[in-house]
Amino acid sequence: MGNSFGKLFKITTFGESHGVALGVTIEGCPAGLKIDEDFIRAEMQRRKPGQSKITTQRKEEDEIEILSGIFEGQTTGTPIGIVIRNADQKSKDYSHISDKFRPSHADYTYFEKYGLRDYRGGGRSSARETAARVAAGAIAKQLLATKGISVQAFVSQVGDLALKKPYQELDLHKAEENIVRCPDPETADQMIELIDSVRKDRDTIGGIVSCVIKNTPAGLGEPVFDRLHAELGKAMLSINAVKGFEFGSGFEGVKMRGSQHNDAIVKEGDQIKTLTNHSGGIQGGISNGEDIYFKVAFKPVATIMQDQDSINEAGEKVTVSGKGRHDPCVVPRAVPIVEAMAALVIADYLLLSKTNKLRDL
Amino acid sequence: MGNSFGKLFKITTFGESHGVALGVTIEGCPAGLKIDEDFIRAEMQRRKPGQSKITTQRKEEDEIEILSGIFEGQTTGTPIGIVIRNADQKSKDYSHISDKFRPSHADYTYFEKYGLRDYRGGGRSSARETAARVAAGAIAKQLLATKGISVQAFVSQVGDLALKKPYQELDLHKAEENIVRCPDPETADQMIELIDSVRKDRDTIGGIVSCVIKNTPAGLGEPVFDRLHAELGKAMLSINAVKGFEFGSGFEGVKMRGSQHNDAIVKEGDQIKTLTNHSGGIQGGISNGEDIYFKVAFKPVATIMQDQDSINEAGEKVTVSGKGRHDPCVVPRAVPIVEAMAALVIADYLLLSKTNKLRDL
Amino acid sequence: MGNSFGKLFKITTFGESHGVALGVTIEGCPAGLKIDEDFIRAEMQRRKPGQSKITTQRKEEDEIEILSGIFEGQTTGTPIGIVIRNADQKSKDYSHISDKFRPSHADYTYFEKYGLRDYRGGGRSSARETAARVAAGAIAKQLLATKGISVQAFVSQVGDLALKKPYQELDLHKAEENIVRCPDPETADQMIELIDSVRKDRDTIGGIVSCVIKNTPAGLGEPVFDRLHAELGKAMLSINAVKGFEFGSGFEGVKMRGSQHNDAIVKEGDQIKTLTNHSGGIQGGISNGEDIYFKVAFKPVATIMQDQDSINEAGEKVTVSGKGRHDPCVVPRAVPIVEAMAALVIADYLLLSKTNKLRDL
Amino acid sequence: MGNSFGKLFKITTFGESHGVALGVTIEGCPAGLKIDEDFIRAEMQRRKPGQSKITTQRKEEDEIEILSGIFEGQTTGTPIGIVIRNADQKSKDYSHISDKFRPSHADYTYFEKYGLRDYRGGGRSSARETAARVAAGAIAKQLLATKGISVQAFVSQVGDLALKKPYQELDLHKAEENIVRCPDPETADQMIELIDSVRKDRDTIGGIVSCVIKNTPAGLGEPVFDRLHAELGKAMLSINAVKGFEFGSGFEGVKMRGSQHNDAIVKEGDQIKTLTNHSGGIQGGISNGEDIYFKVAFKPVATIMQDQDSINEAGEKVTVSGKGRHDPCVVPRAVPIVEAMAALVIADYLLLSKTNKLRDL
Repeated sequence: MGNSFGKLFKITTFGESHGVALGVTIEGCPAGLKIDEDFIRAEMQRRKPGQSKITTQRKEEDEIEILSGIFEGQTTGTPIGIVIRNADQKSKDYSHISDKFRPSHADYTYFEKYGLRDYRGGGRSSARETAARVAAGAIAKQLLATKGISVQAFVSQVGDLALKKPYQELDLHKAEENIVRCPDPETADQMIELIDSVRKDRDTIGGIVSCVIKNTPAGLGEPVFDRLHAELGKAMLSINAVKGFEFGSGFEGVKMRGSQHNDAIVKEGDQIKTLTNHSGGIQGGISNGEDIYFKVAFKPVATIMQDQDSINEAGEKVTVSGKGRHDPCVVPRAVPIVEAMAALVIADYLLLSKTNKLRDL
Repeated sequence: MGNSFGKLFKITTFGESHGVALGVTIEGCPAGLKIDEDFIRAEMQRRKPGQSKITTQRKEEDEIEILSGIFEGQTTGTPIGIVIRNADQKSKDYSHISDKFRPSHADYTYFEKYGLRDYRGGGRSSARETAARVAAGAIAKQLLATKGISVQAFVSQVGDLALKKPYQELDLHKAEENIVRCPDPETADQMIELIDSVRKDRDTIGGIVSCVIKNTPAGLGEPVFDRLHAELGKAMLSINAVKGFEFGSGFEGVKMRGSQHNDAIVKEGDQIKTLTNHSGGIQGGISNGEDIYFKVAFKPVATIMQDQDSINEAGEKVTVSGKGRHDPCVVPRAVPIVEAMAALVIADYLLLSKTNKLRDL
Repeated sequence: MGNSFGKLFKITTFGESHGVALGVTIEGCPAGLKIDEDFIRAEMQRRKPGQSKITTQRKEEDEIEILSGIFEGQTTGTPIGIVIRNADQKSKDYSHISDKFRPSHADYTYFEKYGLRDYRGGGRSSARETAARVAAGAIAKQLLATKGISVQAFVSQVGDLALKKPYQELDLHKAEENIVRCPDPETADQMIELIDSVRKDRDTIGGIVSCVIKNTPAGLGEPVFDRLHAELGKAMLSINAVKGFEFGSGFEGVKMRGSQHNDAIVKEGDQIKTLTNHSGGIQGGISNGEDIYFKVAFKPVATIMQDQDSINEAGEKVTVSGKGRHDPCVVPRAVPIVEAMAALVIADYLLLSKTNKLRDL
Repeated sequence: MGNSFGKLFKITTFGESHGVALGVTIEGCPAGLKIDEDFIRAEMQRRKPGQSKITTQRKEEDEIEILSGIFEGQTTGTPIGIVIRNADQKSKDYSHISDKFRPSHADYTYFEKYGLRDYRGGGRSSARETAARVAAGAIAKQLLATKGISVQAFVSQVGDLALKKPYQELDLHKAEENIVRCPDPETADQMIELIDSVRKDRDTIGGIVSCVIKNTPAGLGEPVFDRLHAELGKAMLSINAVKGFEFGSGFEGVKMRGSQHNDAIVKEGDQIKTLTNHSGGIQGGISNGEDIYFKVAFKPVATIMQDQDSINEAGEKVTVSGKGRHDPCVVPRAVPIVEAMAALVIADYLLLSKTNKLRDL
């Protein structure tokens, strides 16, 4: 339980940080989709460690190997198996933490749940696991692209440095032009500087990733429990270090009056639109065709290069200190992960929506 | 798809706002649980309309009828079927909105998804559906009570009126002593006044419900996708009018440094504890035994007593105006719904956790 | 777990033999299907007790009440809730068996599983539960009818009295013209006589129900685990008293050589056909467009009007004897149940098949 | 959809006959189970091709590689990823069948379902896929062994050559002492001779595999739809070439009277037993602690070394003839597959049964 995501377009992952390999099985991708493997590789590059001075300097090439499900360049409708070997697997000595519970990591909770744990680099609880998601998301994105649907995430806040403009006033493609993945170059520079100074303090800091999904058709969502935003929220909250999710007007919306918040419906030419979009493209848990947008809050990375108090498996007081190479701020590398999970949700709900009306069967 | 929630302790609901009845089937409740039907009824009272001057004056008695699964006062392990008849069912004329799309309601999206819709009071998209959840949650709460686990929600913000103290400094039981369900009497009075003034403006306003779960054992959660907070988040986002979810340090946590945010682990007597609880009781998606706490953002109710621009099914411009009896602010009645969904998640994950270790089998 | 069936077109049932009511929630029925309630009622009549001299004389009117999901005569895409009240609920005294385990009933196994049990008429283990399936199946049948798909079952064997002709040589509609539901009038008479004599012996006897599904499109089935026949098999084996399932050539097919068993593929006009149909309309777990046919074996009913040795909950030796009104042979009433489950599987797989090809999206 | 099996102890497989590799992800195996990799390898040997003169002479070493989920020799509770590379992958020319539909294979149905297909050796529809199941089953067996539960299958019929004795009178361990896996040496010799003669005729023949599960505790099963035998039946029917499933008295039981068929319940010492076991160890869908036994019918292999009429993708008449190395009879190699699937079902239901009673929580 817990290693699968999705209903029709469904992924199942396995793998620990320092095991032999990570893997993902992708079910339900319709047959006849041309797969661009280079695109998958490019997405992996966006997530991989060591890509800039503000990310961990650990080296993982994150090479994917596709084992099934694609024949003569196209999906066949059968499950796509992908494996990503852990290059870094044996390079490290974990004896200094093998019986210690690192604060705000999952060491203690895994130990309590399972009675034992793979202590190497966090094992299954490591964010390394998200590499498998990005590979799967890259296939979902290719499916969505055939329908003109795009998913774009970007960093909108680091610490208390936040983007001031709404996303509509920004050129989101600029996000990929700097190492922090913020679409406003000036703010990006400040964010990079902040992360760098935090890193020098041997500390870490949190941030926010925003995401915009464009061109989703109206009608995606499965009320009452599997509302589109509920599934998006779950998808985001399943990413390591995430503490919050909001869509549309979000937490700020609670301060508004209904008369301000309601999105008036109009017809422009043949198209039904809303004048504002406080709904974030989703009403009653179903997409209405407007942009879907949401924010995801990431806490500061738990591994810091400072001494911290904790206990070990025997219940003795110990000191824990981060070693090696870690991210001072997770959000730049989280951008492709957020996109991947969003793409998986939309792909899944697109398929689910195909059987809603008798007249479409 | 979309009408079930949970994996082992699972509910499936049906019913429209103005259909014959709502219903819920509860699967997986262990056998031998003594059921207090009066407690279920009391929970229904907390959610029902017409309970105070700041809620809708609509009358629904929300009488439950238990059809199966309980024998001689105890659960038998078979599914518990509950039906709640709609008293108000035929009392209203909907012709004035039968072909109109109300702004920020689900009228348009349901119509796009299904090609037709039950326009009476929002049909399935109405928050009336949550009555079935509260009935099921009342059974989950009774299961949790046998393990000493409590779930308590309260209103922590209405508009921009927010509780200033952290929950630890409040007597949460006071929440039930006022009609807005805020545990600080002074703030409660202000909130009530605010909601009342908004109502007089023929408008609505949003708010935040906070929730604290105490005495959860360590080890609940199903990484990587079904992390405990991801499922809680989905549960909350599946409630009508919810726009955001955060747990522990939440969105504010992004501003913190790792050295501030990390929760030091200590042993107090026999018990392993954390000195702070920015983690919100969940690490790596698994409970650590500390209080689980989270916040849920509710938008202002979409039905306002004012004229609004919209279109009808034919695409013609129309004016829509709320009629009848509606809530000016949803959060007081949302408190038991948040609790019900939280209780369902914890009950489900408690069962799931029973097969984690070979030595427990 | 265990009270739901199906993936997209999904049912969830509740209810005990002598509880207040049975119920079923039907999810995933596409919107816009016109529902003929009289047809549902007619199907209920085919299953209900007391319909002939060779069935139990118990009286249950099996009146359905539709609580949701249908509006102005059409499905809306939201779940359809149906309740069937137990008229016979309080008429009986169960003290004579309340602590006894009836041989070959589920008394002992429910008691072991749950630690307690509803002893009234078998509780949830009673075949009365199938009434809810027949109601749901009647809706699935109406969906299939819009695609020209028909599902017809009939009794092909009682004891060792078996139909000699293959189904292709029989007029299957004649099955409904006699009380045993065998399409060959002469064999039907013999079967009726046999059942009647068994009844007079205060005994019971087994039988076989065969089923033919016509006009299924090619392409239904979800390999590798959810092969179409695997799901049909599970559906049938989930019916009370079923001991076996075979499709196409079945158990007899094991004696054949590949050269005899293989179905040659030919083109007739525009249509691809097979010359024989040992495959039973399913190859590799996917329908090929030929008739799907299968057989379901039912054991003799466990309740007999004779004294039997058993033990009670205290482990003491006791004598158990059937009382009241029971079926001497279950197959005549099982015919509509087999059809209902088959219709549910085909409806579900029809929906699932709609997202297989990119070009269909 | 369709590539996962199980609810708590769950497997997800991928892989085509002639793709890069097969794989399986095993979720829900409790933590702390010592894994004997040699046992997994031994099970793979029992299924692999080329093991005797009556199986295909194809060479596949079926080497497993465990990629995750096991640490220091024990399961950690995280998913176990296993990959099996296809050694034979590129050795063959498929141009002679690339556009032809082989009779009674899945060529036509996959093509209809997906619009294209991987024609190399049947792709996903090949029985090669079952290698992944055997690997997973070998882990389930090790879990069951800790509870004393054993699963043993054997060949009970080839063509019309059937074992005459009931399994209770046979030493089932002798099944592994001959190449056809029949526990009666004399019948085994006849079966081997029959298969060999069929092979020389360039033909194939069907058979039956029987299976006995011993020491299952009472209480396993999830009525009403997920009855233990329904899930076992589905598991078996999901294996390639299976046409039928029966348990306990099976199809023969339909001829019996209730007075003969009912299993009298007795207490022997502390243990509750039944005098006969027509129920096959399952009553009301729940195990009663007696031996669970069932039979699985396999059709003759579709690939024969003879010319057969068929059509190609263009609808033209063609001749198809088997080439290369194929099994003349599938049952000897099916024995470990039947055991694997049975072990997976029992492991899953064992876990599911752990939350039935409040007093066990």
